[in-house]
Amino acid sequence: MAADRIIVFDTTLRDGEQSPGISLNPAEKLEIAHQLARLGVDVIEAGFPIASPGDFEAVQGIARAVGGPVICALARAHAADIERAGAAVRDAERPRIHTFISTSDIHIEHQLQSTRADVLAQARAAVAHAKSLCEDVEFSPMDATRADAEFTASVLQVALDEGATTINIPDTVGYAMPLEFAAFLGRLYELVPDLRDVVLSVHCHDDLGLAVANSFAGLQAGARQVEVAVNGIGERAGNASLEEIVMLLETRKADVGFSTGVNTREIARASRLISRLTGYAIQPNKAIVGRNAFAHESGIHQDGVLKERSTYEIMDATSIGLEANALVLGKHSGRHALRSALEELGFAIDGAALNAAFKRFKEIADRKKQVTAMDLEAIVTDELRVTTSAWTLAWFDVEASTRRPPHARVALRTADGDEIEGDFHGDGPIDAIFRAINAATKREARLRDFRIDAVTGGQDALGEASVVLELGGSTGSGQGVSPDIIEAATLAYVRALSNAERRVLEAAEASEPADELSPTP
Amino acid sequence: MAADRIIVFDTTLRDGEQSPGISLNPAEKLEIAHQLARLGVDVIEAGFPIASPGDFEAVQGIARAVGGPVICALARAHAADIERAGAAVRDAERPRIHTFISTSDIHIEHQLQSTRADVLAQARAAVAHAKSLCEDVEFSPMDATRADAEFTASVLQVALDEGATTINIPDTVGYAMPLEFAAFLGRLYELVPDLRDVVLSVHCHDDLGLAVANSFAGLQAGARQVEVAVNGIGERAGNASLEEIVMLLETRKADVGFSTGVNTREIARASRLISRLTGYAIQPNKAIVGRNAFAHESGIHQDGVLKERSTYEIMDATSIGLEANALVLGKHSGRHALRSALEELGFAIDGAALNAAFKRFKEIADRKKQVTAMDLEAIVTDELRVTTSAWTLAWFDVEASTRRPPHARVALRTADGDEIEGDFHGDGPIDAIFRAINAATKREARLRDFRIDAVTGGQDALGEASVVLELGGSTGSGQGVSPDIIEAATLAYVRALSNAERRVLEAAEASEPADELSPTP
Repeated sequence: MAADRIIVFDTTLRDGEQSPGISLNPAEKLEIAHQLARLGVDVIEAGFPIASPGDFEAVQGIARAVGGPVICALARAHAADIERAGAAVRDAERPRIHTFISTSDIHIEHQLQSTRADVLAQARAAVAHAKSLCEDVEFSPMDATRADAEFTASVLQVALDEGATTINIPDTVGYAMPLEFAAFLGRLYELVPDLRDVVLSVHCHDDLGLAVANSFAGLQAGARQVEVAVNGIGERAGNASLEEIVMLLETRKADVGFSTGVNTREIARASRLISRLTGYAIQPNKAIVGRNAFAHESGIHQDGVLKERSTYEIMDATSIGLEANALVLGKHSGRHALRSALEELGFAIDGAALNAAFKRFKEIADRKKQVTAMDLEAIVTDELRVTTSAWTLAWFDVEASTRRPPHARVALRTADGDEIEGDFHGDGPIDAIFRAINAATKREARLRDFRIDAVTGGQDALGEASVVLELGGSTGSGQGVSPDIIEAATLAYVRALSNAERRVLEAAEASEPADELSPTP
Repeated sequence: MAADRIIVFDTTLRDGEQSPGISLNPAEKLEIAHQLARLGVDVIEAGFPIASPGDFEAVQGIARAVGGPVICALARAHAADIERAGAAVRDAERPRIHTFISTSDIHIEHQLQSTRADVLAQARAAVAHAKSLCEDVEFSPMDATRADAEFTASVLQVALDEGATTINIPDTVGYAMPLEFAAFLGRLYELVPDLRDVVLSVHCHDDLGLAVANSFAGLQAGARQVEVAVNGIGERAGNASLEEIVMLLETRKADVGFSTGVNTREIARASRLISRLTGYAIQPNKAIVGRNAFAHESGIHQDGVLKERSTYEIMDATSIGLEANALVLGKHSGRHALRSALEELGFAIDGAALNAAFKRFKEIADRKKQVTAMDLEAIVTDELRVTTSAWTLAWFDVEASTRRPPHARVALRTADGDEIEGDFHGDGPIDAIFRAINAATKREARLRDFRIDAVTGGQDALGEASVVLELGGSTGSGQGVSPDIIEAATLAYVRALSNAERRVLEAAEASEPADELSPTP
């Protein structure tokens, strides 16, 4: 690999998925992994297999099905974690185990309740164990930027002695500043000359708004792997955002000389897919992928030639795949046209999934004059959600008025095919429906977050609803898409409830409580 | 002022307000300015008075009513702009005129269609003119980071010769990198030694995710004013975010030695107010003000002592004013209790406004067990919107079902007190209501964006709807708050339509079309 080639390590499915309220099922994780492969990332951190049987299954499914990128699994410096991680990625074309332990005194004392000597011994044992299962081993000294450089260096030396092939320096709490972070890496290079023989990596959090700048400073200081997440999701303020790092390196290529293997034209689709499946909105002023990021999207007239456009745009919207997609279907379009259109969008769908998508497409085309590429993407993504539902929506009726309390009746189908009904007089129609669903399922779910967005502009846009709810100590999120926002909200609630129900059942059989796994790098 | 004291220049009301779809009325701008004063910013850039009579009026209202910060108005390097800006801020305790002209060849050639010599002459005339109206004059060489340093330096020398007291270096298109930006400022200091005698300022855009890092690099290179916007709003990907810059300087104070006059405990409220009035959502993983920014907000147990918390938190949520506010009112709370509660929240409301807020409070308290501080804030902010409405909602009825098309009937009151009605069978209940409103008002408004959020978690949360629509070439946005999301959406649509109607009327009487004012620094 060329000296200036940057390895893009995507942790959307691991650090990103640890964000509160995100609960992706294995089918959704697989779809994201396929899109990350299309996007051309070098490494996919697919999950944390010890966390639950569902996490293990998702990582294993990705390792078996997704070709191209290295597939990586996270493990604390414990034998059981490393065994699980190794087993989960065993069938990948190119597997990696990523193991970590804190080197900061504050973490060693308060979180690990341990000693430096013990951390050193655990790091050695963990890397040796991982190396016995997998040639490609990454090691992270967690909270490194608040740790003693000399002690961290001695831990890194041990990891290198045992065969670690990538050393990742995490700014776990998002505390570093660019010059300071670069200087810290420089100090580690001085203390551990062997670092020059492996790939140095950076993993930065955005608590002070510096994740991208710190990552970039790390690359300029010699790192050649950058850990990122799509839309910058991740614990707290999230990780360095993939699209910002990649477009920074791309836009300033002539000046900084770095390159990546990313196909930037897949960025917009990756961003939409992940926003949709996680239920995490993207603010309009988000760099690169926000609605306003490109001037031509924001009402300033588009008729200028490209040269004039450079007066106010440093990037072209088409470079991230935002070109206005001309593809439009109508109510008379057949199954074949739908399939070709989906293929053009990168969805290889067949059999039962195509039938389900076609049925939804017809329902929507009956109510909406034109079905655009964006609509199709929303419908298909929405269909991915259906596989594991404990309940599905049969029908609802709701009446709302400023002049009397709203009343909802709803019927759901259970996995066994039974129809169950509930009804409720609520504060508002959505509230009434949600409580009617609780009544039908006999579940005491509590709404934690609720949002509705329009998929595209225009009066007959599809509505896209996101629900996060709490059930028996677990959270579940769900999305729904429909021209009718009440229907979208209802679908989202039923799916969130199904997801929460699955989490409750999983928690009961998990090897240890997910809480104890926090924090991670 | 101490050498390490950083001047915080807030441009939420100018660059932020230029974001697509934001249309604040003068009352809303004034409320934001009051909150910025409470927050303790040093300078409020209140608007661009030449843009429209409404903009002029808003800047003048802020200059007359808001004490504390310097009140600044933006003006191109044209005599008419500078006259308008000077007149708008004349009555401020401490007025400032901010004038700008591009120094990059790409802007000079394509946007200004002018020459370097002409730019130099215009800059001289503009600063001299501004100085004749106002002692405090800021000058910006627009697109400086893509301009020739020598030519930019000669323009700055002219501005200094004519008496500019602040020189602001904008990275207009968000193209700079931290080290490069710092080096550019260093070069300007070399070329223009007189720069040391005035305040150097930085204004960075976030197109590549580096706005905060570039601003910070600018401060480390000698700048002592930083231009920011709350929530990082602004053209395209927005400006450096106030909360990120301020909390970076605060959190790393011991290492970097900078201080600001900001009362950080007002950050959370400022962020909520601006998100609400602009309709711009904040993504959950936004640094400092996102829902997940603080670990204790995101499900990780809160029972650790402060010392343990430092293992995963570098800031305390209370430092930005996010403490769980214990204040709760119920349906039996009276006008006096409401008024005290509002005062505690920083709203000095009396007379008709208090009566209106009390009426809304009672309506909501009837339908919601407990009214929290967050709810009150939403209600009062919502009330601010009512002053300039062409239409208000009288009542609506809607029926929705999976089994037949939804039907809506709606009645509005005009400014004259007449009641007008419309009805529509739509794709969904919201769509039906929106079209029924179009029918009632005989306006062909087109929906551009629509979103609903829950104000707080929980089943009986208030719903907060945002609508952006287009009417006769103008955009209008509106928000609505209600326990019933259909009501919230309806209120939002009626207000957006009223705002768009006002813009259409304003555009007819504007001195020149707002389009021609873009771009700005």
